[in-house]
Amino acid sequence: MSRLTVFGLEGIPEVKVGDDVATLIAESALAGNDTALVDGDVIVVTQKIVSKAEDRLVAVDPDDPLSHKPLVERESVRILRRRGELIISETVHGFVCANAGIDLSNVERGWAALLPVDSDRSARRIRDRLRHLAGVDVGVVISDTFGRTWRRGVTDVAIGCAGIAGVVDLRGTPDALGREMQVTEVAVVDEIAAAAELVMGKSTGIPVAVVRGIDPEWMRTGSVSEEIVRRPQDDLFR
Amino acid sequence: MSRLTVFGLEGIPEVKVGDDVATLIAESALAGNDTALVDGDVIVVTQKIVSKAEDRLVAVDPDDPLSHKPLVERESVRILRRRGELIISETVHGFVCANAGIDLSNVERGWAALLPVDSDRSARRIRDRLRHLAGVDVGVVISDTFGRTWRRGVTDVAIGCAGIAGVVDLRGTPDALGREMQVTEVAVVDEIAAAAELVMGKSTGIPVAVVRGIDPEWMRTGSVSEEIVRRPQDDLFR
Repeated sequence: MSRLTVFGLEGIPEVKVGDDVATLIAESALAGNDTALVDGDVIVVTQKIVSKAEDRLVAVDPDDPLSHKPLVERESVRILRRRGELIISETVHGFVCANAGIDLSNVERGWAALLPVDSDRSARRIRDRLRHLAGVDVGVVISDTFGRTWRRGVTDVAIGCAGIAGVVDLRGTPDALGREMQVTEVAVVDEIAAAAELVMGKSTGIPVAVVRGIDPEWMRTGSVSEEIVRRPQDDLFR
Repeated sequence: MSRLTVFGLEGIPEVKVGDDVATLIAESALAGNDTALVDGDVIVVTQKIVSKAEDRLVAVDPDDPLSHKPLVERESVRILRRRGELIISETVHGFVCANAGIDLSNVERGWAALLPVDSDRSARRIRDRLRHLAGVDVGVVISDTFGRTWRRGVTDVAIGCAGIAGVVDLRGTPDALGREMQVTEVAVVDEIAAAAELVMGKSTGIPVAVVRGIDPEWMRTGSVSEEIVRRPQDDLFR
């Protein structure tokens, strides 16, 4: 029977510029109770610590709550909506989100964190380093918290991945009644990010979670930018 | 440490009109290996079996793949976009999705399944029946598979819930650095539906999953229609 377990890694220290995130993950996993990484695990890493490690921090005026807005414009290729201080834009990466993914929470006062330049690449680096450090073959997902159209509340989604599929294509797989299925391309990487968020929370200081028990057939190269990001010309709401 | 487990309930038979879904769930959970329900579990039930049990089936011409389209118009209050055969509309329930949530997969040939009339109420009934049948106090989520704007692939989201919060409001909770957080209303009910989908798949015939280990503080009355559905006047994309 398919059974998933999802747990957070505790004890990861405040990440600083230049830190090796994979080392922090490997050490935390070894130190925890029954949290040592195994082949096939998917490691979900919040964007914020990746951005810090990769020095994606930009100084802003700590006394001006809007001082990061010029950064939002710089990191955007297209503004979709504005309402008050809220900007919904398409980022240079192709994501559509609020404020180009830039925010000030969980960052030192006076700094704003931009999204990683290439989160798929960030995921690949962490995956490769974990293989080297811990001898495990894992998937890695970089997650961030986005709003949605039409539904209240935010959820965590994937902005980068490696070693795990973005989308699993179930087109043509017979349904339970044996007939041809309609199009069903499931964004499993986003569902994994969402599952991880349930054990991370926003204020508990757990920036990394492990999802164990993912279907081995889903463990392939993977890419959020190639599989998940919808091209503007294919989009009905842009 | 917070640790979630997610597993599917196996052996649930093909659901027919008038079946008591809670009885099927309770029997399947007891029959499974280490799957007996406990207080605090959240039971995720796919919309399709709820619609069948509640007789939300409508006869359609089995030889006309578009014969359910008039139903889509009837179940919609507002058409947002059309492209070819695809209709994105706001349903009578307030959901925005493709084809008003009506589809033909996993339904007998010649029938289409509409969404339940009130999925929060369906969830409450299943929750109340499970308390009666199995003596457990659980949360219940009715899930369905929706597409998203801007991102490829579908994910499972909640269309109804009971005994589990729709949105958990972390506004004002200090972030890990001790400062005031920005708005963070997390749609945990959608993240739970997404996590469940990872063990259900689309063609494996597992229409119910259990998510165990959810924060007990999130176990309250809950409602998708009141907490998750965004009112049109609050929406930037309608």
